[in-house]
Amino acid sequence: MLKVGIIGVGTVGTSVVNILKDNADIISARAGIDIVVKSGVVKNLSKERGLDITLTDNVDDILNDDEIDVVVELMGGVEDAFEIVKKALRSGKAVVTANKALLAYHRYELEEIAQDIAFEYEASVAGGIPIINALRDGLSANHIQSIMGIMNGTCNYMMTKMANDGVAYDAILKEAQELGYAEADPTFDVGGFDAAHKLLILASIAYGIDAKPEDILIEGIDKVTQDDISFAKEFGYAIKLLGIAKKDADEVELRVHACLIKKDQMIAKIDGVMNGISVVGDKVGETLYYGPGAGGDATASAVVANIIDIARSGKSRPMLGFDKPMEGELKLKPIDEISSKYYLRINVSDRTGVLAKISKIFEDNNISIETMLQRPASQESANLLISTHTALEKDIQNMIKKIAALDFVNSTPVMIRIV
Amino acid sequence: MLKVGIIGVGTVGTSVVNILKDNADIISARAGIDIVVKSGVVKNLSKERGLDITLTDNVDDILNDDEIDVVVELMGGVEDAFEIVKKALRSGKAVVTANKALLAYHRYELEEIAQDIAFEYEASVAGGIPIINALRDGLSANHIQSIMGIMNGTCNYMMTKMANDGVAYDAILKEAQELGYAEADPTFDVGGFDAAHKLLILASIAYGIDAKPEDILIEGIDKVTQDDISFAKEFGYAIKLLGIAKKDADEVELRVHACLIKKDQMIAKIDGVMNGISVVGDKVGETLYYGPGAGGDATASAVVANIIDIARSGKSRPMLGFDKPMEGELKLKPIDEISSKYYLRINVSDRTGVLAKISKIFEDNNISIETMLQRPASQESANLLISTHTALEKDIQNMIKKIAALDFVNSTPVMIRIV
Repeated sequence: MLKVGIIGVGTVGTSVVNILKDNADIISARAGIDIVVKSGVVKNLSKERGLDITLTDNVDDILNDDEIDVVVELMGGVEDAFEIVKKALRSGKAVVTANKALLAYHRYELEEIAQDIAFEYEASVAGGIPIINALRDGLSANHIQSIMGIMNGTCNYMMTKMANDGVAYDAILKEAQELGYAEADPTFDVGGFDAAHKLLILASIAYGIDAKPEDILIEGIDKVTQDDISFAKEFGYAIKLLGIAKKDADEVELRVHACLIKKDQMIAKIDGVMNGISVVGDKVGETLYYGPGAGGDATASAVVANIIDIARSGKSRPMLGFDKPMEGELKLKPIDEISSKYYLRINVSDRTGVLAKISKIFEDNNISIETMLQRPASQESANLLISTHTALEKDIQNMIKKIAALDFVNSTPVMIRIV
Repeated sequence: MLKVGIIGVGTVGTSVVNILKDNADIISARAGIDIVVKSGVVKNLSKERGLDITLTDNVDDILNDDEIDVVVELMGGVEDAFEIVKKALRSGKAVVTANKALLAYHRYELEEIAQDIAFEYEASVAGGIPIINALRDGLSANHIQSIMGIMNGTCNYMMTKMANDGVAYDAILKEAQELGYAEADPTFDVGGFDAAHKLLILASIAYGIDAKPEDILIEGIDKVTQDDISFAKEFGYAIKLLGIAKKDADEVELRVHACLIKKDQMIAKIDGVMNGISVVGDKVGETLYYGPGAGGDATASAVVANIIDIARSGKSRPMLGFDKPMEGELKLKPIDEISSKYYLRINVSDRTGVLAKISKIFEDNNISIETMLQRPASQESANLLISTHTALEKDIQNMIKKIAALDFVNSTPVMIRIV
């Protein structure tokens, strides 16, 4: 019998307990051994949870329990969780975690400690979608050329609703908060930070690259308006928040931002709160993985799959992985060097000659315009909606600064990259 | 070093050799050991293939070679392949196969022989998509409620082109043949048999059910016309050939046929030659796996992933699977007992009273009409395009017989199930 201790028995932890009970028949058969949750750590012992496991508010009750084979860390946060997971691994307990922030900051140190013991985290990226399993096992014959994903359901819900219902950003955010999809402080989701944590985990698996959130380009969806949506529709795009990892020779670019993406691409067809991750391998071509990126049962499904793996391998590292950098000495590409097509929304005073002046600035900066739409924004102002051919990030950023400084430009232009 | 022998060095076999060479760096790292192809069996030894492996036209040169650890069977066909794979397994060689027909007929016998040796077949279903890996590992915490997939790229290409370009079935089939997507005799693809083989493999993994192609409902796309496409568009459906496995209490229904499927479902959004498989687990909900279902490199990507697994596990059965029936005593649901919504196209002589008579027959058979369209088909005839509420297969089949016998009905009605 494999005994599990859960640190943090909230929504996901409760689902883990229930799945191991509800599906004990198939799980025992697939694991080759019975798996039971022995105990769980909670903050508030007096709260009634209806679970028949031992509850404690002391982490050491699990860390020091020799009967516990696998620690499931679902407490969240970074540094406290880091200390606890280190202790668990050092005491010979296998660890399963769904904690993406912990992994975004400390995955390499933990992998180092977990040389001879299983350390698994399928649930940390895209909830119930077995994307880590696909990268490590299903696509193991491939060099990974790119990973591009909808990794945050809240943002995707909001972008979908803005496109389908024509409602403004603020109204949709309020609705998402009421539905429980977005937090009271939504910055972590709509600012792209949640997606960035997940992207860093996937990039570390595919490329062995050890970047931290501070090192990469992270932007959110908070500047997207109905003007942008309508430009997107006019020219056959959807707008999505994507996490992107792309290999280019010995460099990897990592970035999270809103994207205009052609509607016929599969990733553009993923709507609502769902997640989807497209992976291009040099041999297989494009594959895509779609499913629920959050929710207690979906996330717990991935946690339990990891526990089953660990049971199968007798707590040693399941032979599933490429745990060390496999792609040689890859470096993070500097943000400035990223090249992309770009979309710009520029709010200008509606005067004669403005269009000519803006066009001239594009020309002077060697940036080639692909399409242009002009729309009235108010009595006295208009929005110029412009897409470019491929350009360098630093050239676009320079040009945006120059445009923002013009007297007939009313605010800093909004830029969305085109994928 | 792990040594591989390939039986059948055609398109996929050549790709296997090339991937193991091109990506030897990451493959060795991920497998923990070098993997090389030692020899291959071909029919025609005089053909130049540009491969630096030993070629032979005698299967025994591989089966009797003690240095060969893994046999990759890519010869196709059923009975000869069965004998060869049996011999290989019995002589202690691990086997990887992409042969779906072999597996549709003999998987259980081969699994029985392969008790202590690896026998893997990721490439047999949906080419480069790691769907078997997802079922066995990523979704291992779940009872699988349903599997529904686009498992044949030829049919999906044809259905997509019919919908997008408005061209007739015969013209698209000709084009698919010219492009090499369809064989000179296209029956195996357009008749649904190829998809059925793949469905049976997935159903055996998810449900442990040992059905043969003869036991299940298999229909193709050959009766789909532009009338059906236009009905589908009018009412928000796409038409796809799907393989469907669905659990209902202690029964499993298995069927392959053209389906009307709501356009907002992810599986309806998969266009062109691509494959996609939706899996619903009782805990995770719906996940979907998309990618190339055919092609040398894509298929070989899955073959090599299996070889890497075998290298990791030291040729013993990789601990990935649920190899035995896990879902208790599931039975195949009789075709007659399937319930579905249905679409019917009935070609009638354009006379007064016809509509009333047809409606009456529906009523008499207790089948409730949901929508109806009437379109002129010629000077003297019209097509009635009718969708029903949920009904039993046997009731629909009975009613179709009665309708076909009516003097004002010009041919047997065409029926497409609605998913």
